[in-house]
Parts: sequence; C-alpha cells; structure tokens
Amino acid sequence: MPPEHRPLAAGRRRTALATETPPGECCPHLHEAIELVGKRWTGAIVSVLLQHDRPMRFSEVGQAVPQLSDRLLSERMKELEARGIVERQVHAEAPVRVEYELTTMGRDLEPALDELRRWALRYLG
Amino acid sequence: MPPEHRPLAAGRRRTALATETPPGECCPHLHEAIELVGKRWTGAIVSVLLQHDRPMRFSEVGQAVPQLSDRLLSERMKELEARGIVERQVHAEAPVRVEYELTTMGRDLEPALDELRRWALRYLG
Repeated sequence: MPPEHRPLAAGRRRTALATETPPGECCPHLHEAIELVGKRWTGAIVSVLLQHDRPMRFSEVGQAVPQLSDRLLSERMKELEARGIVERQVHAEAPVRVEYELTTMGRDLEPALDELRRWALRYLG
Repeated sequence: MPPEHRPLAAGRRRTALATETPPGECCPHLHEAIELVGKRWTGAIVSVLLQHDRPMRFSEVGQAVPQLSDRLLSERMKELEARGIVERQVHAEAPVRVEYELTTMGRDLEPALDELRRWALRYLG
C-alpha cells in the first residue's frame, strides 16, 4: 500500500490537495460544483430558469420556487450572477424592467439536473 | 396571463405545493434530491464510494475526502444510511471490521454526478 493510501489515525484532520487529485480521491472541482449548485435554493432557481428557457423577471422566478423568500432569492441571484451562471438584464423602460437569464455556463447544467431529476422521481417520488 | 402565473407582491411568502407541481414550477422531488446530495460533503462521499465501487472502511473514505473531519464524516454516513443510499456492513471478526457500500439507490446517482463532474471540469477546471 503506497504511503498516500494508508489510513490516517482517527481524529486527525486531512489537509486539502493543492493542485492535482490522486486516483480515488474526490475531484475538487466536482466538490466545488456540488457546493455551488447544492446550496439551499440555488439548484431550484437554476432548474426553473432552465424549464422556462427565456429571460424571467424576479417575481416570476420567485413564484416558481415555493417557500423561497424574496430576500433569499435576491441573495442567490446575486451569487449566481457573480459566478457567471445567471445574467442580469436591465431594460431602459418606464418602469425599468429587470430580467434574469442563464448564461451558456448556466444552461450547461441541464444534463446534470436532468439526471438528478430522473433519480429523484425514481427514488423520492 | 393565467392567475397562477401572476407575479406576487414583493415581500409576500409563497406557500409550498402539497401534491403536484404546476408546469413551470420547481419539481419538489428534484429540490429534495439537490438538498440531499448537495449537503456539505455528502456529494463528495458518494462520489468517492462510486469511484471505488467496493465496500470501503471509514478511514478509507475519510482519507479520500480532503478537509473532512472524522466527526462530520460519521454524521454524514449516518444520514446516508438513514436515507437508504449507503449500507453499513459489520463483519464479525476480531477486531470487528465495519465497511460502507452504496446501495442500488446510491449507485444510481452516478449519471448525475458524472454530468456534474463534466460541467465542473469545463467551467471550474
């Protein structure tokens, strides 16, 4: 057994991997993606934007995600915008119209969410 | 615009859907699945068990998930067992050998995690 595969003593903390992932260890990018999409309500918001496949107003998104408060929706939208998953469009009308749309990066989450939905319908449905 | 698509007043809380999901609303089962797999470290643990594709000892799983403490790993393993995603096997040896393995329900998360890994490598890599 190579040294890097020896079990650690119980209670000892493991340190993060700086650059690359040895075989069998969890891919840090996957971990980051799970933390990103799995954050409370984030996956639901992306899923609603995917289903509609067009720019949506804040209130429309909120209405489609039951139990989510406007405060939290606003917070999540800002995070998704900062991560490049959602684009915020401001239309210079009176009153100003603000819409949210998935970027290509955001739309490319569709296969993963589709597979998870299939799993959910099979085992949680 | 049908009444169910009318925007709600700002600040008003939306109520949960009891039984079925109107078109365009977020599927509650998908939401539950995202909350389940997206819980901090849970996806990483499932991903490691999938990659190894054999029963693993506690210390092996822990070693493969950087930065995860034994206390949290133990908590997550209990949750995954309670949800039917992981099976705990106790082998009556001296000393007793305890191993963890994915159930069919757990293994069926593979396509979703594979798609998410692909996305992560493209956009976060």
